[in-house]
Amino acid sequence: MTNLSVRIREVGPRDGLQNEKKWIETQDKVDWIDQLAETGLSYIELTSFVHPKWIPALSDASEVVKGVKKNKNVIFGALVPNERGLDRALEVGIDEIAVFLSASETHNRKNINKSIDETFLVLKPVIERAKKSNKPIRGYVSTVFGCPYEGDVDVNQTRKIAYQLMEAGVEEISFGDTIGVATPNQIEDVIQAISKEVSLEKMALHPHDTRGTALANVFAAYQLGVRAFDGSVAGLGGCPYAPGASGNVATEDLIYLLEGLGAKTGVDLEKLLESAKWIQRKLGRNLPSHHLQLAMAQDHREGFVDENTAY
Amino acid sequence: MTNLSVRIREVGPRDGLQNEKKWIETQDKVDWIDQLAETGLSYIELTSFVHPKWIPALSDASEVVKGVKKNKNVIFGALVPNERGLDRALEVGIDEIAVFLSASETHNRKNINKSIDETFLVLKPVIERAKKSNKPIRGYVSTVFGCPYEGDVDVNQTRKIAYQLMEAGVEEISFGDTIGVATPNQIEDVIQAISKEVSLEKMALHPHDTRGTALANVFAAYQLGVRAFDGSVAGLGGCPYAPGASGNVATEDLIYLLEGLGAKTGVDLEKLLESAKWIQRKLGRNLPSHHLQLAMAQDHREGFVDENTAY
Repeated sequence: MTNLSVRIREVGPRDGLQNEKKWIETQDKVDWIDQLAETGLSYIELTSFVHPKWIPALSDASEVVKGVKKNKNVIFGALVPNERGLDRALEVGIDEIAVFLSASETHNRKNINKSIDETFLVLKPVIERAKKSNKPIRGYVSTVFGCPYEGDVDVNQTRKIAYQLMEAGVEEISFGDTIGVATPNQIEDVIQAISKEVSLEKMALHPHDTRGTALANVFAAYQLGVRAFDGSVAGLGGCPYAPGASGNVATEDLIYLLEGLGAKTGVDLEKLLESAKWIQRKLGRNLPSHHLQLAMAQDHREGFVDENTAY
Repeated sequence: MTNLSVRIREVGPRDGLQNEKKWIETQDKVDWIDQLAETGLSYIELTSFVHPKWIPALSDASEVVKGVKKNKNVIFGALVPNERGLDRALEVGIDEIAVFLSASETHNRKNINKSIDETFLVLKPVIERAKKSNKPIRGYVSTVFGCPYEGDVDVNQTRKIAYQLMEAGVEEISFGDTIGVATPNQIEDVIQAISKEVSLEKMALHPHDTRGTALANVFAAYQLGVRAFDGSVAGLGGCPYAPGASGNVATEDLIYLLEGLGAKTGVDLEKLLESAKWIQRKLGRNLPSHHLQLAMAQDHREGFVDENTAY
């Protein structure tokens, strides 16, 4: 893992599954995560310790973490909203803790039912206690590039939140394009602004492909020196505000781009595609990953090449 | 049109429809192109004058060109493989001629049934005669970034073809990522190499989104000064080598990226989306455009489900 030049954060089992209406059996989740852990991924976010009432799809969080094979090459993370969630996460021996809030007040309120300031009051003891337990902490900031309720989001708001998260002691902050509206110029503007609070090696980009711009944005961030990127295998998760549209960038697509840029991700794309096919079969519907859809089309044609295409 | 800072080349009616198995009625094609001509697009490629035996979907080429409303704001182009095709195109008063060949010998042979050198023998009189008729000529070079038969393609082969096309007198050369394998580093390498033969203002990129990298590649080319891009409304056309996978980048997605970069495309994205929805309904299956799928998902949430679309 020491030769990796970029850090891929696989969020499929958590961010990808959290909005799924179809229940995936705990043992299936565990089997799937065990597969993912063999692809060369160095971080996998397993689940979320929010109250099961809010995310029924992940109500088996403890069982999933307990079921997954220990793997010294992979850091297993989980989302934690408060101290009760932290208790549950620590109890089952999670490796890393992720906390979350939004850059826009309205989205934060709709999502967490608290103002941003109130959220920090809840998160600070979580972060302190996690640190005492020697657990690295990742911070998610949503709606950095646009909010489904407020539209444009002031970059100074993001900057202030980033400052507070760094002060509290998080190791990495993931900046989310929650509704997939960003284009490369905005990526550059935001990274430039927040780099006053967060060094590049502590920054991650969480791109969404809702308008097809995810990899253009990754390329822009990579050019500026960002070296951590969130992806969801198979593009699982879609757009939370428009079910059926693309959302989370597919980890396969992300890896193809980054390796093409000369980065070393450590991930075996073929193995990852098998995991993507596996979860697509379980869910029983097409998932948005470009590589997955290409593989499905190629499998379907079984190597047959059409000679009748003009240009 | 004088304020446009990038040139969008809409190839949907030709490149998008050419592999469609479902026959689209001539009057439907005409109505659809008339819609497209009202979106602010400055170039639309209407059809192909290859022998109808090879592309039955476009066997009504002359009728389509004759049926489309004249529009002083739009240049109407058509693909022409040889002098017979040129005769047919000139007869119905096309504005611009497009010729095509491949950067890889094998793809050229499979596609045109000739070697690259033999293809030039056919194209030269086409270009000469088109010029005598005061028709601007666009050249397409396929498989520049990879070939479905040969794999890697030597950039010197592309450079040589670009040189010959410029010598013959074409006004713009579109470099195609026919199988959608390119990543930004390769875009940069190729543009740098071919810029020795073709000035940036005469270059166009024809990106495919088969692996999700289309807009990252457009961004890379734009940063280097390329200012013409091919798109297919709705992402129509897909990948000729893997039906069902993404191919041609959707013009909507392309425009969103470019406008986000500060470019002026002159195209009304909302109107273009209506044209995308229209052709999707006609074809009766989901097309790969990110903006289109987002719009469908949003319509669905607002209760405007289109009964004729699978979604």
